[in-house]
Amino acid sequence: MINAYAAKEAGGKLEKFQYDPGKLGSHDVEIDVESCGICHSDLSMLDNEWGMTEYPFVPGHEVVGTISQIGEHVTSLKVGQRVGLGWHSGYCNSCRTCEEGDHNLCADATMTIGGRHGGFADKVRAQARAVIPLPDAIDSTKAGPLFCGGITVFNPLVQFGISPTSEVGVVGIGGLGHLALQFLNAWGCKVVAFTSSESKKKEALELGASDTINSRDEDEIKKARGRFDLIISTVNVKLDWNLYLSTLAPKGRLHFVGATLEPLDIGAFNLIGGQKSVSGSPVGSPATIKTMLDFAAHHNIEPVTETFKFDDVNEAIARLREGKAHYRVVLTK
Amino acid sequence: MINAYAAKEAGGKLEKFQYDPGKLGSHDVEIDVESCGICHSDLSMLDNEWGMTEYPFVPGHEVVGTISQIGEHVTSLKVGQRVGLGWHSGYCNSCRTCEEGDHNLCADATMTIGGRHGGFADKVRAQARAVIPLPDAIDSTKAGPLFCGGITVFNPLVQFGISPTSEVGVVGIGGLGHLALQFLNAWGCKVVAFTSSESKKKEALELGASDTINSRDEDEIKKARGRFDLIISTVNVKLDWNLYLSTLAPKGRLHFVGATLEPLDIGAFNLIGGQKSVSGSPVGSPATIKTMLDFAAHHNIEPVTETFKFDDVNEAIARLREGKAHYRVVLTK
Repeated sequence: MINAYAAKEAGGKLEKFQYDPGKLGSHDVEIDVESCGICHSDLSMLDNEWGMTEYPFVPGHEVVGTISQIGEHVTSLKVGQRVGLGWHSGYCNSCRTCEEGDHNLCADATMTIGGRHGGFADKVRAQARAVIPLPDAIDSTKAGPLFCGGITVFNPLVQFGISPTSEVGVVGIGGLGHLALQFLNAWGCKVVAFTSSESKKKEALELGASDTINSRDEDEIKKARGRFDLIISTVNVKLDWNLYLSTLAPKGRLHFVGATLEPLDIGAFNLIGGQKSVSGSPVGSPATIKTMLDFAAHHNIEPVTETFKFDDVNEAIARLREGKAHYRVVLTK
Repeated sequence: MINAYAAKEAGGKLEKFQYDPGKLGSHDVEIDVESCGICHSDLSMLDNEWGMTEYPFVPGHEVVGTISQIGEHVTSLKVGQRVGLGWHSGYCNSCRTCEEGDHNLCADATMTIGGRHGGFADKVRAQARAVIPLPDAIDSTKAGPLFCGGITVFNPLVQFGISPTSEVGVVGIGGLGHLALQFLNAWGCKVVAFTSSESKKKEALELGASDTINSRDEDEIKKARGRFDLIISTVNVKLDWNLYLSTLAPKGRLHFVGATLEPLDIGAFNLIGGQKSVSGSPVGSPATIKTMLDFAAHHNIEPVTETFKFDDVNEAIARLREGKAHYRVVLTK
């Protein structure tokens, strides 16, 4: 039996919950969970904001732990190995996108917290392909948020071949944004934080930003006209995206990793004149997660975290829900 | 004196008009105009649709002719050489985009029909850099539309490094779209025409499409889910862009060269899930125009045109305005 924390209904408190995972799949592994980050999408799923949550619902898709069992066909991982598991718990491994190495875009990928139980538990299982070895240099209690928040902001740099000579804006300095600043700084880019919080301005500079722009000051944004090669938006609110497009250099890209629900209202002329792009992307493939972990280890990049015990999961969720988390919450044994 | 055709007011008839071009600039050339295409943007400018037209207004930015005079510092062109001139009549040649070869994105580029007089005339002048030699294999009376319509649909293939293995959709089979089909077919792509016109379906297949989709049939579009690596939209009307996004393959791009004035209403989730992009671009750089002309000459690509005499310019404009042009109108001496 696996001992987990589950909600019985949308927005419900998490309670102790046991389930029988059955026989371990031949291509799967079981992880003894050591710690697990809480991501904003755990909240969205808990609240059934996207209309696809199944209850009882066990959140948790920023899992770190050690392999306790491997399926009979698994050769890539060993019992006792330190690993992590993120948004995806498995891929079809046979479609064109999987064959091309873009498993994160596989239409048949399974989600760690969708239609199955996640990592707020003593154990969690997943396809071996989706479980990534953790470099020795990365601390287990810090690593969790890299597996969803981290890879989500790192992946675009790889996907679009961002040059270290680029000037990049990061909109929203929270769980994702504070990692984006660190990755971009280490990537060699000049990076600018868009934030309206005075306290975060100072922190953004410490995290690698060379400059900040008040995200609520239209005049300040206008002064950045034509400046950025890339802007990564991590926010889930609607901003004046056409104004942000004006701050892009020719051939610039406004890239969304934060999922604002309102339409983007982009003016076609604002794209055409400077050959600009608007795009989005989800997490990353297993190969890119490995690259990200190596890059984070090399550059000592880690999330700023607050830790709670698994038994205090409801307090941890309340903290995140109130927007007080600084910057990322991790549950530990 | 230069003898031209000008409108005195927004939407006005073109009338004979003379102006003194002054002394030829040292980096400029003068072209004896042989023919000139009429582009939809000549109409938009004639009608002051974009609020930047100056009257008297001389349209014409798909010019073909021979060099009659060269400025004292011009070494790249010779008197008597057959050339073409498109949307831009000059560049700053010193900004970063110009230095990088992206003159078409230069913020200080001058427009052939903006703040100066265009090619509906016996002569027109431009900076030598913006005047492109015409390969021998290309017919003068056919070449005009390549300099704006042609380069506008060809440029994205170069800019985004489109692979010949791509499947590409072209939305709108008109002046731009009928050239896009030919370019994409010669590029090696499988190309699909989105059109609601029965007669154009047949023509699209003749022009290089391997298939057509009814652009007004939602069910037919839905069947193309996940199919296209690139869609080029040449229309200036609002369509259900989120539906079109659903027909893109992972990493696909919806690219606008037609300038629809209504906001694009893109859902961020529709970009994030499949790492999709929405983008736009204007015409092309001098280097890309040369590449396009060589490609067109090699593959016998030419616009389908209707010709009118310069003196019948008002009839020609009426034809285009009524949407009857098949596919591109060219004025000849």
